[in-house]
Amino acid sequence: MSFPALTIKLPDWVDSFLSSKPDILPTIEQRMDLVISLSRLNIQHKTGGPFAAAVFSMDTGKLIAPGVNMVVTSSCSVAHGEIVALSIAQKISGCFDLGAPGHPEYELVSSTAPCAMCLGAIPWSGVKRLICGARDEDARAIGFDEGSKMSNWVEELEKRGISVINDVLRLEAASVLKYYNDSGGTIYNGRQDSNLT
Amino acid sequence: MSFPALTIKLPDWVDSFLSSKPDILPTIEQRMDLVISLSRLNIQHKTGGPFAAAVFSMDTGKLIAPGVNMVVTSSCSVAHGEIVALSIAQKISGCFDLGAPGHPEYELVSSTAPCAMCLGAIPWSGVKRLICGARDEDARAIGFDEGSKMSNWVEELEKRGISVINDVLRLEAASVLKYYNDSGGTIYNGRQDSNLT
Repeated sequence: MSFPALTIKLPDWVDSFLSSKPDILPTIEQRMDLVISLSRLNIQHKTGGPFAAAVFSMDTGKLIAPGVNMVVTSSCSVAHGEIVALSIAQKISGCFDLGAPGHPEYELVSSTAPCAMCLGAIPWSGVKRLICGARDEDARAIGFDEGSKMSNWVEELEKRGISVINDVLRLEAASVLKYYNDSGGTIYNGRQDSNLT
Repeated sequence: MSFPALTIKLPDWVDSFLSSKPDILPTIEQRMDLVISLSRLNIQHKTGGPFAAAVFSMDTGKLIAPGVNMVVTSSCSVAHGEIVALSIAQKISGCFDLGAPGHPEYELVSSTAPCAMCLGAIPWSGVKRLICGARDEDARAIGFDEGSKMSNWVEELEKRGISVINDVLRLEAASVLKYYNDSGGTIYNGRQDSNLT
């Protein structure tokens, strides 16, 4: 009996796109703008859903790791942008804990507020801040499901020492979701009655 | 700018252990017993935390994919037993949705009730049933953190068409957690104030 390894590799266009960008982004709006660009390019390259994320050094704004949604293209329901970015950042750092002593403080920037799975993943990752663009309701407006989230999820993260900034370039982020929907993007459906982010 | 791929590979002992077992397990107790054995062996082989899971065909009891916790050994906070098992099952099936038409119905068997992240991952995976051994409180008793879960998480899964059976061989599953703790297993800590499952 033999089982395959799980491998998730960023689409080739990510490296070349990021090579043309500065790797230090001083403001949170610049960081979100980059992540929104990744979410838009992920649609245009047909490499996944309209969601992206990235891990940055909070202090310097250095890009540590990007992530894009690859659920359909990698046949993996776990491959949300946030999970991909966090996992790659940990691989680069060589540690499952981005909050371990000796690391700078890291943040996760997500083009849309995280679904229930990604929300649960954030405290395990060691990031100290979450920055969100579009809201849950913007994803739901085009038919995606964010899962069963506690209504006080911001407070729950903050109790764990993770600060949250919502609505950063929300309109721009939400416009990518609308673009995906308007251009006939698949609202991929893991179950018969609802959809995934 | 170039970013590494994420690769998560089961420890070598998993294949050889499972080769000695029947690949059809008719009862849920037999399936849980296998998963508990994986959680115990994961400790003894020092390949991760005291948690394991597996995806089975609900009807026949055929083992589709195993998973063990590899958070520390793979430097990846996402690599919980449930996430590993679901992802490998999807890779084998070639689809992100284990509930897609044409598939038999699948279930996830987990040695301990899922943490907040894995709970959020379950509806996206397409499994139709969740079977748990140890409870949240058994994991918390040895210092692991299950995350911020809704108190009515069973009902939330059932609303999404996923049935839940708790406490299957609970004492046996919890005894593995205690064995891990008694043998000095690391309660690995992703943040300064709590721990991971």
